[in-house]
Amino acid sequence: MNYFSSQFKLGILGGGQLGKMMLYNTRKFDIYTKVIDSSADAPSRLACDEFIQGDILDYETVLNFGRQVDVLTFEIENVNVDALETLEQEGIKVYPSSKTLRTIQNKATQKLFYTDNGIPTAPFFRFAYTSEIKEAINHGGLNLPFVWKSARFGYDGNGVKVIRQISDLEQLPNVECIAEELIPFKNELAVIVARNADGEIKTYPTVEMEFHPEANQVEYVLCPARLPDAITKKAEDLALQVATAFKHVGLLAVEMFLTKDDNVLVNEVAPRPHNSGHYSIEGSYTSQFEQQLRAILNLPLGNTDNKVAGVMVNLVGAENHTGNVHYKNIETIMAMDGVTPHIYGKKQTRPFRKMGHVTIVDKDINKAREIAGKVKQTIEVISK
Amino acid sequence: MNYFSSQFKLGILGGGQLGKMMLYNTRKFDIYTKVIDSSADAPSRLACDEFIQGDILDYETVLNFGRQVDVLTFEIENVNVDALETLEQEGIKVYPSSKTLRTIQNKATQKLFYTDNGIPTAPFFRFAYTSEIKEAINHGGLNLPFVWKSARFGYDGNGVKVIRQISDLEQLPNVECIAEELIPFKNELAVIVARNADGEIKTYPTVEMEFHPEANQVEYVLCPARLPDAITKKAEDLALQVATAFKHVGLLAVEMFLTKDDNVLVNEVAPRPHNSGHYSIEGSYTSQFEQQLRAILNLPLGNTDNKVAGVMVNLVGAENHTGNVHYKNIETIMAMDGVTPHIYGKKQTRPFRKMGHVTIVDKDINKAREIAGKVKQTIEVISK
Repeated sequence: MNYFSSQFKLGILGGGQLGKMMLYNTRKFDIYTKVIDSSADAPSRLACDEFIQGDILDYETVLNFGRQVDVLTFEIENVNVDALETLEQEGIKVYPSSKTLRTIQNKATQKLFYTDNGIPTAPFFRFAYTSEIKEAINHGGLNLPFVWKSARFGYDGNGVKVIRQISDLEQLPNVECIAEELIPFKNELAVIVARNADGEIKTYPTVEMEFHPEANQVEYVLCPARLPDAITKKAEDLALQVATAFKHVGLLAVEMFLTKDDNVLVNEVAPRPHNSGHYSIEGSYTSQFEQQLRAILNLPLGNTDNKVAGVMVNLVGAENHTGNVHYKNIETIMAMDGVTPHIYGKKQTRPFRKMGHVTIVDKDINKAREIAGKVKQTIEVISK
Repeated sequence: MNYFSSQFKLGILGGGQLGKMMLYNTRKFDIYTKVIDSSADAPSRLACDEFIQGDILDYETVLNFGRQVDVLTFEIENVNVDALETLEQEGIKVYPSSKTLRTIQNKATQKLFYTDNGIPTAPFFRFAYTSEIKEAINHGGLNLPFVWKSARFGYDGNGVKVIRQISDLEQLPNVECIAEELIPFKNELAVIVARNADGEIKTYPTVEMEFHPEANQVEYVLCPARLPDAITKKAEDLALQVATAFKHVGLLAVEMFLTKDDNVLVNEVAPRPHNSGHYSIEGSYTSQFEQQLRAILNLPLGNTDNKVAGVMVNLVGAENHTGNVHYKNIETIMAMDGVTPHIYGKKQTRPFRKMGHVTIVDKDINKAREIAGKVKQTIEVISK
């Protein structure tokens, strides 16, 4: 198929930030794009050729949309996967595949996939309802503490909870879930893998998440990770194994735990550009967004090496601030070497809302981390 | 002024490729943009917040457009400068200024500006009409050979001609022009200067143009230039001198000749992002497009150093090909390390039409140049 022709159309389900950043690269390659999102003000609206407002969880809507394009992708997992499957049967290229997405959408089937494929992951039990957990504990089949995760559409902060005593289970929704062994990890790592339909496969270097010592929130994403080669190699090999097992086409962000005894376990995956790869816009030879296009259009993959080291800081709304957003001291951080803010364009801030990110690059990762610390101390996302 | 607020509006005259590449960066900073262009299909249309179709050479049109924005800029020199002057008087921030643009728009006044400010440039004579030149030669006031340049809106290829004998003057339009001494230069250089309203000023490294030995067309733009530091320093200092003399705000691309005896002479300038700076998207810490925004919005300027060396190759339509464009072997060049095509999205090719560019980056400039040679031999812009 000739992607660089005026007949070719790429469809994207979801019109959020990730889609928007991918769309900049479609312009570079002059690829015609159609985007669908439920919000009329979706960030992608201004970056695509055609925008359609519609519900990407609705079977008929996704089916009708998909029939109008040559290659269909998504920038968010929460889409109607049955429609994707029908479209595949009709001959539309859907990348990543409906099969992969279906496995990933449910954390229980995702975990089973790892164990079925000999991929190391934290031991877990599967439950049809949260209410069944108490019984399992009482019968001695499950030991405290553990991590409760809702199986479907669980996102950090509301779909995951550490259970240290039975009473912690109260207030949790009574849904399909897993109980995972609490791994005393010393580091959280991620590796982005790109694979195209021809099977060409490459990993980005291992990135390291640095957590806020108290808030237990990722504060910095660093690439390359400040870890021995033996460990980063182990993480990259494992990520390759996961992507290959999925016969994945597109990007796969593999999040991993580094245990205290230097084992690497897969935590979960995202079949799309990922927060842990934002550094690549400024840091890598090929950004994750360009790479996603190359992969799903079955073009040769680009070089995944770093040009320079990169550190990414998320910009989240400050506590006690709700209202019209103001980026306090943004001019100050822009005067620092190698600092690029990415403002997502949300007009309203609220505590911990993700409003953008800042990338800091430097030849030396330690220097980049030092500047990143200053960035974090300086900029504030407040209301005004 | 708070540029990161929802009230702020940036206006851009012209909706071409340069504007489009600048607009990607307005998204990153969430800056609201209005674009005006005479073509309904202008490339910027899909990248701005508001698009208006209108004639940017028309006084009233530019005036009305400019009154709706806070900062007004242009991505092409050929705009109504009287309207810009009126807008400045009304308090609209116009960057670069109408005064600078007026001086630059006319090659005769541009050359006078250099001589008035002690800036080395090739000696020249000024004529109200081309027809006056013959007389000057006959009276011995002008010697052959020389370079004829139309004073207004002359672009390479149609506004410039080397005159070796009087008959070469035939066919030329009878317009205001200059006759410039033919400089036997050994190299053509360019330096992009960025200056913001506060007067912060930075240069990008000197780039070197490598010409096709026969066609006398720029084939490669290389950054850094493969020249001794003493020469690149001289070029950068001269570019700073020019931008400072203009009290320029925004980017100024300064094109220069390196003479056989290692003198550097200013050829001409462009008050905007420039072909010679395209390498910066992949090669520099701060791309010229982001830098233009920083400069005209009076933000701190970004680091102009290279992350890696960059070579830029223009993609022009092959001879004997007119019609629907096809980028033959684009997949082959995309498999080469550090190669990024930028396709401008023109649907029709014709001989020598500028259809895009390709950037090649590598830690080593000589390696990048070697890959660039392969790119040039491989990709073909043909009709199909």
